[in-house]
Amino acid sequence: MQSPLIQELIEAFRVLPGVGPKSAQRMAFYLLEQNKNGGSVLAKTLAKAVEEIGHCSLCRTLTEEETCSICQSSRRATGELCIVESPSDVSVIEQSGIFQGQYFVLMGHLSPIDGIGPKQIGLDTLEKRLNDDSVHELIIATNPTVEGEATAHYIQQIALKHQVKVSRLAQGIPMGGELEYLDSGTLSQAFLARKAM
Amino acid sequence: MQSPLIQELIEAFRVLPGVGPKSAQRMAFYLLEQNKNGGSVLAKTLAKAVEEIGHCSLCRTLTEEETCSICQSSRRATGELCIVESPSDVSVIEQSGIFQGQYFVLMGHLSPIDGIGPKQIGLDTLEKRLNDDSVHELIIATNPTVEGEATAHYIQQIALKHQVKVSRLAQGIPMGGELEYLDSGTLSQAFLARKAM
Ligand SMILES: [Zn+2]
Ligand SMILES: [Zn+2]
Repeated sequence: MQSPLIQELIEAFRVLPGVGPKSAQRMAFYLLEQNKNGGSVLAKTLAKAVEEIGHCSLCRTLTEEETCSICQSSRRATGELCIVESPSDVSVIEQSGIFQGQYFVLMGHLSPIDGIGPKQIGLDTLEKRLNDDSVHELIIATNPTVEGEATAHYIQQIALKHQVKVSRLAQGIPMGGELEYLDSGTLSQAFLARKAM
Repeated sequence: MQSPLIQELIEAFRVLPGVGPKSAQRMAFYLLEQNKNGGSVLAKTLAKAVEEIGHCSLCRTLTEEETCSICQSSRRATGELCIVESPSDVSVIEQSGIFQGQYFVLMGHLSPIDGIGPKQIGLDTLEKRLNDDSVHELIIATNPTVEGEATAHYIQQIALKHQVKVSRLAQGIPMGGELEYLDSGTLSQAFLARKAM
């Protein structure tokens, strides 16, 4: 007996992470009853973002420009390249303020079972960068999960081949934990105590 | 150092109820990284809903048509009119299946301090309906809060003036609770045990 369009909107909200049927309904009704303007801004911004945001041609993070602001900044060209799985990891490391270099964003991790090999996570691009660029240290900050560790190990081999120093964030990050949920303190600690691989 | 457009998108998600900065960021990254199609559908559906959904001319609930499907159904013209505060209340009562009549949706409750008087919650429209129509019972299902009770009392006076039977959902709904979070069982019970006012 619900309006078909409201039903569609509730379904559409359910694609969001952590949003079940009850929250989706609350979101739909809240916007329609109390904040049509906020709903309209969300719809427009989301449409624009989906349309315009792609990947940085240098580090693969999400950006609406050809290269992201970190890659564009000469101040950040310290020769240290921090390798993370996702743009949210960049975000959490930036919030901690501990790292002044640049990033390389894998947009995932190696997962042969899902057909995700070195190329799918941009390791060909990374190798090109190690050939051309003045990168002198790779800091691997993949998640401390089985897949993250396997990916770190694979990248370590690439670094050795190119004779680039490579380190991994120090233990202190709980096993199975996800980088993006860590507090800045723990993360800073892990950066400072990183160990050569 | 975050892309301005991603930042805007995260801000836009924060208008949603129960969404803080962390969840807003997760939503934005999830759609951009993993589900652009879902994001695009959400943007379009939300834009359409905000544009097209208005209020039913008879019962004031949300609908993209002139009158909602319940008001259109002759099967629902039982002469019982259930008065609720919001469209989500209609939704939860419909889910319980206990009520076969029609609704009148206040879209709020009396709140003189916020300038919300009888007219703002559509009580003039309700009175017209009591004059013209064959409504023979008002079932008041406003929330059991101070404002909900005051609103119920005010509507009771209107019903008495028009010599229409009026009842209120039975106690059993916890004081201060909100109708939309009740389970169907409690709600059905409250309907069956409703008391004449
Ligand atoms: Zn970049
Ligand atoms: Zn209606």
